Amino acid sequence: MPEPIRVTVWGENIHEHRDQQVKEIYPDTMHETIAAGLRADLGDAVEVRTAWLQQPENGLTEEVLAGTDVLTWWGHAAHGDVSDEVVDRVQRAVQSGMGLLALHSAHYSKVFKRLLGTSCDLQWRNAGERELVWTVDPAHPIAAGIPHPLVLDAEEMYGELFDIPQPDELVFVSSFTGGEVFRSGCCYRRGRGRVFYFRPGDQDFPTYHNPHIRRVLANAVGWLAPSEPRALPEVHHRPQPDWFA
Amino acid sequence: MPEPIRVTVWGENIHEHRDQQVKEIYPDTMHETIAAGLRADLGDAVEVRTAWLQQPENGLTEEVLAGTDVLTWWGHAAHGDVSDEVVDRVQRAVQSGMGLLALHSAHYSKVFKRLLGTSCDLQWRNAGERELVWTVDPAHPIAAGIPHPLVLDAEEMYGELFDIPQPDELVFVSSFTGGEVFRSGCCYRRGRGRVFYFRPGDQDFPTYHNPHIRRVLANAVGWLAPSEPRALPEVHHRPQPDWFA
Amino acid sequence: MPEPIRVTVWGENIHEHRDQQVKEIYPDTMHETIAAGLRADLGDAVEVRTAWLQQPENGLTEEVLAGTDVLTWWGHAAHGDVSDEVVDRVQRAVQSGMGLLALHSAHYSKVFKRLLGTSCDLQWRNAGERELVWTVDPAHPIAAGIPHPLVLDAEEMYGELFDIPQPDELVFVSSFTGGEVFRSGCCYRRGRGRVFYFRPGDQDFPTYHNPHIRRVLANAVGWLAPSEPRALPEVHHRPQPDWFA
Amino acid sequence: MPEPIRVTVWGENIHEHRDQQVKEIYPDTMHETIAAGLRADLGDAVEVRTAWLQQPENGLTEEVLAGTDVLTWWGHAAHGDVSDEVVDRVQRAVQSGMGLLALHSAHYSKVFKRLLGTSCDLQWRNAGERELVWTVDPAHPIAAGIPHPLVLDAEEMYGELFDIPQPDELVFVSSFTGGEVFRSGCCYRRGRGRVFYFRPGDQDFPTYHNPHIRRVLANAVGWLAPSEPRALPEVHHRPQPDWFA
Repeated sequence: MPEPIRVTVWGENIHEHRDQQVKEIYPDTMHETIAAGLRADLGDAVEVRTAWLQQPENGLTEEVLAGTDVLTWWGHAAHGDVSDEVVDRVQRAVQSGMGLLALHSAHYSKVFKRLLGTSCDLQWRNAGERELVWTVDPAHPIAAGIPHPLVLDAEEMYGELFDIPQPDELVFVSSFTGGEVFRSGCCYRRGRGRVFYFRPGDQDFPTYHNPHIRRVLANAVGWLAPSEPRALPEVHHRPQPDWFA
Repeated sequence: MPEPIRVTVWGENIHEHRDQQVKEIYPDTMHETIAAGLRADLGDAVEVRTAWLQQPENGLTEEVLAGTDVLTWWGHAAHGDVSDEVVDRVQRAVQSGMGLLALHSAHYSKVFKRLLGTSCDLQWRNAGERELVWTVDPAHPIAAGIPHPLVLDAEEMYGELFDIPQPDELVFVSSFTGGEVFRSGCCYRRGRGRVFYFRPGDQDFPTYHNPHIRRVLANAVGWLAPSEPRALPEVHHRPQPDWFA
Repeated sequence: MPEPIRVTVWGENIHEHRDQQVKEIYPDTMHETIAAGLRADLGDAVEVRTAWLQQPENGLTEEVLAGTDVLTWWGHAAHGDVSDEVVDRVQRAVQSGMGLLALHSAHYSKVFKRLLGTSCDLQWRNAGERELVWTVDPAHPIAAGIPHPLVLDAEEMYGELFDIPQPDELVFVSSFTGGEVFRSGCCYRRGRGRVFYFRPGDQDFPTYHNPHIRRVLANAVGWLAPSEPRALPEVHHRPQPDWFA
Repeated sequence: MPEPIRVTVWGENIHEHRDQQVKEIYPDTMHETIAAGLRADLGDAVEVRTAWLQQPENGLTEEVLAGTDVLTWWGHAAHGDVSDEVVDRVQRAVQSGMGLLALHSAHYSKVFKRLLGTSCDLQWRNAGERELVWTVDPAHPIAAGIPHPLVLDAEEMYGELFDIPQPDELVFVSSFTGGEVFRSGCCYRRGRGRVFYFRPGDQDFPTYHNPHIRRVLANAVGWLAPSEPRALPEVHHRPQPDWFA
């Protein structure tokens, strides 16, 4: 039996208390819903806990991150409230091997922009449009078992230009009722860590209850989990080898 | 003044004689229409000639290829009629530095499949749907001056999965009335040569008369043109350097 | 317990019978040595068989390939003796999901060139030089447990330019006594299948007895094994969706 | 006549005043030497000015950056003295289309790490070793006219692991007397801007007087220059199209 993957599901935890519609869709909060889905779908293969913005150190102490193999991140209304110290810490954790699953509006979180280096800007329209999520890399583990297309009856639209570096692996491309397209499943490697961005998941729609979306998240956790112990490289002076002339 | 780019526009030259609708859209043939567009848009920067399937050696002798910086390829009904010897020749020319602009159903030409190594299969439906061509790499020279989106009122639909290696640079993604998406502008490097695949251009629609499409083709010719003299690498025995121990 | 990975180790099987030096290093042939290493290192996780050039259909019938998850390929003196029909078959198998581990001079095999589309030429010198294999992607599963550098006291030199498409993932870079460098561990995706090229392994040196090299091969088998059932895409007509306007 | 490329050569400007050896190699400072080389090699095709750390706003005001197409950066001893405000400004300029040529120890500058997202750590040894710079992408414009290998008799060694994202295009790989290797010419795209990292150029050696190194820098300026007017994307609300259902 391999060790379980230790997942921390991080939530901004604001819309669920402030907006009636979100409360009704996610009475247990978005992060608890996501966590419950991972537990149900992955069973003993994972150990899932949750953390949120309003906790001390935004819930992401050195200790929590040291015990996290994969961190999922949902934020929207309060990106600026995450402390720079916590962002530094999460970035270092990714560089040392932790996986990061950036969800929906996390495209605009400090840590995602830090890891990518671009503005991460995009176009959007929240009109409850049909989203079709198409697989463009059918052998990718994150796409395993996902319908082609995955149909979401109502979602927020995100459109290109999505200002990101070209993904190392592009897994999904979405289209919307308005005809817009979006690179909606994007893989990156940063240091020893992996990053996956997955577009669907606006707070106004029951997206994280959708079994196919849950499957994508479960697949992503598997792909993001490091296979080797965590390590951060260092600039260091290299001794001369024996054969040095 | 830099030397003009020598372009050879290759056409299969079948639909224009066989199908009444195509005859009406392209009375001068598709390849002559494409060639005329490049001459009009690029002027003295190019020298454009045409070649076609029914000529000796399919119009692509060693001499023609030696004098070609960029070859554009449109084929659909008779991929199998291109001789394997000509395909070998074109592949070697690309490897040595010639640019190849593969148009629409050229995804299924022998030479494109040779250069990519995959099946190049896809999904399709010819129902005269609206195609929206979105730019996902706005600083790419091939996207210069192209509207976002470029709207084609009626085109054949091509949908994912498009079975290609992940492009070195992805420039355009299309959506269609039916909601399908497609990676419609794809850059590859093979040896010293460059390859650009551009999706629009079904014979049943006046796509190559569209000024924005013409601009994409003109931009692509500029990007595909080699900056260095043609050269093919060789397996060769490397002498020992002076410092060899 | 997951199903064992079904590995077929293919050998050209010529040098081992013709060259005294090779006979002494590999009395059981190179392919049987590679196969024995995989069995010893991976145990129940694999089922390993061997096949070779001189068998009917070069040992690679449709049935053999249908039962192969990962094919390893060593060839050098007789690339031209592999039938084109077998090459077509292996290429299709890769496109449908089979992994291919191309070893050393397999850079010049028909099937490797087919899958990559380039000449795959390089520079070489066989002077028994020290090779240092450096890891440039330390979190890659193929590099797990490999020393940095992996030192081979004597090997054939392969030098850049290696005329390949830029790898999807570059894992190893070698240097040699003469100062040459070489991209010696290169990952590609072609269709649903994966390809890994690994440079060391000239017949004149006991490279496949080296435990670190064996570990690379074992790691590569794990990375190359498909996670999904085999499938080949097809060009097909896509029906109109319900929402089609 | 196209407009000249506006180049700003930025120097840290410390070693040249503090270290006798550097003073003797670069009596006019490193940045003035680099600037003079570009002027000599590129003539009317460029307008070159210099800027340095000790100037107000580190010499990189909004006005200077607005008038810069390509910024070259050499820093080593005082990365921390560049103000975060200036780093933000340079990062935004790159995202909007400015090219950045990061030289040698600029791998560890704030702005390079910001754009790449990784630690950018590496191994090093300053023992005046022979560096061989090999071209692995011979058709790349930055490699035009560069010998294979380019030999530097004495340089600082930089070795893998170089903790960077896999380059979008890898142009050069170096080896050193000690047998180490290094990805020494690396291309990235960030937003509308391009980034090129070039390894050679330690202050203790006369590397920027070498005509081949000067040629690489001149080539890089050409590749980095934006072809389109500067523009920064923005998150914006997209109106519904006419066909929206």
